[in-house]
Amino acid sequence: MYIWQVIKDRIILGIDPGTNVMGFGIIHVKGSNIVLLELGSLHMNKIEDHGTKLKMIFDKVLSLIDHHHPDELAAEAPFFGKNVQSMLKLGRAQGVALAAALHRNIPIFEYAPRKIKQSITGKGAASKEQVAAMVQILLKLTDDEMPKFSDATDGVAAALCHYYQLKPGQFTTANKGQSGWKSFINNNPGRVKS
Amino acid sequence: MYIWQVIKDRIILGIDPGTNVMGFGIIHVKGSNIVLLELGSLHMNKIEDHGTKLKMIFDKVLSLIDHHHPDELAAEAPFFGKNVQSMLKLGRAQGVALAAALHRNIPIFEYAPRKIKQSITGKGAASKEQVAAMVQILLKLTDDEMPKFSDATDGVAAALCHYYQLKPGQFTTANKGQSGWKSFINNNPGRVKS
Repeated sequence: MYIWQVIKDRIILGIDPGTNVMGFGIIHVKGSNIVLLELGSLHMNKIEDHGTKLKMIFDKVLSLIDHHHPDELAAEAPFFGKNVQSMLKLGRAQGVALAAALHRNIPIFEYAPRKIKQSITGKGAASKEQVAAMVQILLKLTDDEMPKFSDATDGVAAALCHYYQLKPGQFTTANKGQSGWKSFINNNPGRVKS
Repeated sequence: MYIWQVIKDRIILGIDPGTNVMGFGIIHVKGSNIVLLELGSLHMNKIEDHGTKLKMIFDKVLSLIDHHHPDELAAEAPFFGKNVQSMLKLGRAQGVALAAALHRNIPIFEYAPRKIKQSITGKGAASKEQVAAMVQILLKLTDDEMPKFSDATDGVAAALCHYYQLKPGQFTTANKGQSGWKSFINNNPGRVKS
């Protein structure tokens, strides 16, 4: 057994935070196996108050962390959008989700949607259905186990993308306590292409 | 003594969250007196990592809350900006600051910069110096007590603005546990003009 097989034991929480829906998925990487621990989506489209939505996102991420004790959080984060108001709202949704991880000292990593699709399907312009199909294969899920909403698949896809960024041997605790994507770039030169 | 003088005893935390500087001020409204409890600014322009900045904002707001136990948080929040990327960053900074308040179940209220200037100086287009001069008068601060950075004054101005929104008799605990500006509008019809 190689050393990297031992230290490869790692739990990753993936989220896709939006203003109306937040998708999430938690994977456990153990040896060469990837096991799905939980998958779901939080729906806030019926809630009118923006503050209540933000609190729901924060509380959900915090409870997922306290339940599964992930080593890292991977978030899908678009860096561009249609207009300034929607970006402000999206930024807030991302902010509260990241705050929950930062509050528990969990390193955060962000990936552009294109990067996640590329990493899962090999195609940056892949459709949501293609991403979902690959997630099903990678996690060996039956049709019944597949979520109804693609947001949940998007959350777990972020976790899988993060896993694929880390080559064997790079799963060390050296990253622990660091956060953000700047430090990820520093620790993984040549690894960020998007 | 009127009843509203008793229930007017209230602590308000005001913040002006930005990506590089966060200004803050805590006021204690007691009877007809406004007492300044703390005033300051958190500087993050030397920090490159975005995640670290967000964690600093979250931790600072949380520690201010745990130290002063404010009844409400008032935040300066521009709703428009120059470009989508700066608004995403600003949204995140606002998001983590609000998350700290939501985490401690403190109702949040947001005010546009113009609304704050209007409420403090009577002029929506007032300069930073004019706002600072009025804050100095309202809080009876000596020149030595005035902060070097206008961000700190902007933070306490948000707290003062919130105080002026609430007429005598409106300081009830009915607002407690509610958050966001939608519920503020509901609870204060005709009060939001900006």
